[in-house]
Amino acid sequence: MSLQNIPTREQIVEAHNRIKPYINRTPLLTNDSINTLCGATVWFKCENLQQIGAFKMRGAMNAALSLPAELLNRGLATHSSGNHAQALARAAKLLGVPAYIVMPRTAPEVKKNGVRKFGGEITECEPTLAAREETLARVMERTGATEIHPFNNYDVMAGQATAALEVYEELRPDYLIAPVGGGGLLSGSAVATSCFSAGTIVIGAEPEGSDDAYRSMQSGKIEPAQSQSIADGLLTTLGDKTFPVIKSRVSEIITVSDKEIIEALRLVWENLKVIAEPSCAVVLAAVLKRPEQFRGKTVAVILSGGNVDLVRILDLFKNL
Amino acid sequence: MSLQNIPTREQIVEAHNRIKPYINRTPLLTNDSINTLCGATVWFKCENLQQIGAFKMRGAMNAALSLPAELLNRGLATHSSGNHAQALARAAKLLGVPAYIVMPRTAPEVKKNGVRKFGGEITECEPTLAAREETLARVMERTGATEIHPFNNYDVMAGQATAALEVYEELRPDYLIAPVGGGGLLSGSAVATSCFSAGTIVIGAEPEGSDDAYRSMQSGKIEPAQSQSIADGLLTTLGDKTFPVIKSRVSEIITVSDKEIIEALRLVWENLKVIAEPSCAVVLAAVLKRPEQFRGKTVAVILSGGNVDLVRILDLFKNL
Repeated sequence: MSLQNIPTREQIVEAHNRIKPYINRTPLLTNDSINTLCGATVWFKCENLQQIGAFKMRGAMNAALSLPAELLNRGLATHSSGNHAQALARAAKLLGVPAYIVMPRTAPEVKKNGVRKFGGEITECEPTLAAREETLARVMERTGATEIHPFNNYDVMAGQATAALEVYEELRPDYLIAPVGGGGLLSGSAVATSCFSAGTIVIGAEPEGSDDAYRSMQSGKIEPAQSQSIADGLLTTLGDKTFPVIKSRVSEIITVSDKEIIEALRLVWENLKVIAEPSCAVVLAAVLKRPEQFRGKTVAVILSGGNVDLVRILDLFKNL
Repeated sequence: MSLQNIPTREQIVEAHNRIKPYINRTPLLTNDSINTLCGATVWFKCENLQQIGAFKMRGAMNAALSLPAELLNRGLATHSSGNHAQALARAAKLLGVPAYIVMPRTAPEVKKNGVRKFGGEITECEPTLAAREETLARVMERTGATEIHPFNNYDVMAGQATAALEVYEELRPDYLIAPVGGGGLLSGSAVATSCFSAGTIVIGAEPEGSDDAYRSMQSGKIEPAQSQSIADGLLTTLGDKTFPVIKSRVSEIITVSDKEIIEALRLVWENLKVIAEPSCAVVLAAVLKRPEQFRGKTVAVILSGGNVDLVRILDLFKNL
């Protein structure tokens, strides 16, 4: 594990120029009511309003566009049941190449349809990591497609870094907070910060029920994730490319409870008027949890995605 | 009724500069899936992401800032149970002057709380137009406050025009579609179009159950609104300042059914990931209703607001 190949300032700028035609410039929103509650000025970088409803579009697109033509033409592959699968399928469609997505047969129909919508070819497998990896290997052997890992890939990291780059084109906040699952967004944000806004302090936010990034920062090595949280996008273990960046460039990880996540999520829906997924809301929950730390400060937070079952979220709000 | 005092190009630019410190620059979003469905490139100007969750912030702020100091200091007044009430209360709070809002005693608690949140003083009255006007007159006599009408006011019109102005700073669409209730947003959009993007065709969209703007365009005089639609922000009769502008500068009014509104609303929630109110969705429903007219065109639509009871909307979606 090293920092040797992490994206440079030039690579992040190149990634941004490369992916611009295919992504939304997402807005940076602020809201009086939330600011009053936080005692801080909070700017939300709304990646839930990104194409496919998540920041994952940035990394997938940059990785695809960074492949040599002969590899790209054989197609893109991954095993994922989340937003990365949809992002990769859309990237492939835009570039006119095939996407091969390995998904556990138990994945919700809505996730499978998200991939099919962009013409992605789904190969189902048993819902274990071993089955996913083995099935992916077979698909790649058959097709010659290249695997694009959801986060443990420097081109993906450079792509995710462009969200923070856009924040810094408009703002120099005291803090930047990103959620942490596999660490693609947080590591990308940390690298972008050291390149474009070195005075900003970078913090990660994660659910208490899967606080592996917090524990990894304590122990100095990658700790396994648990899977006990409503924030289902953040139940992933860090990678050997993302962790060294986080360890060296992120100041701390703040953990929040599921109740705090749902309360923060409701504030986002009701005040910002955007549809965000639970995994997003950890960043606002983190600000609300530390009133002394953030009082009077300018805090940029990244809302990572908005792909949710609307009815399920409303049930969560009703039970608050 | 005349066109003599409608806002000029210079007045709209001045309004924009005047209100900029107090409003969000709202994003212009587009989405692959919606574009495919429409056969057109649709850009959504997301005024639901505006402060107080609606474009009304623009007009209220501009009208307040256009008052002479001695009038402004005595306060702002209106009778409204909608987004304008909240916008006026926020404008007053930002400027450190009182806001006096007359509301029917039957108005939902959430609307009253929206006004109280910004320190607005509510005077309740019976839920009739006569009672509202009479109560407002008494409040103004007592306080010396100035009435800011929700739409029939040229400073309000100039403020609402700044939403379209921002669209034209980024885009020159073939069409611009705005919802029409009292006509503040549609008339402002039409004036801005003739000033900044004369080649764009302006269309209004309204619910079939309250198609007074459509009928007014046919008859050439202001027809009374009905009140039969889920789009509860659009049940207002046009004003003698807004109608002449609409009559002369809007190409047509497209009417849509409540079912079409709810279907379009769901597309907005699920694909754009923003919380929009039913009144907003008429603009997308209008595009979907006329596939031949809009095929291959670039269409900008204004999403006017996002102040909804989340649970009520989910129930609408469930019953689709």
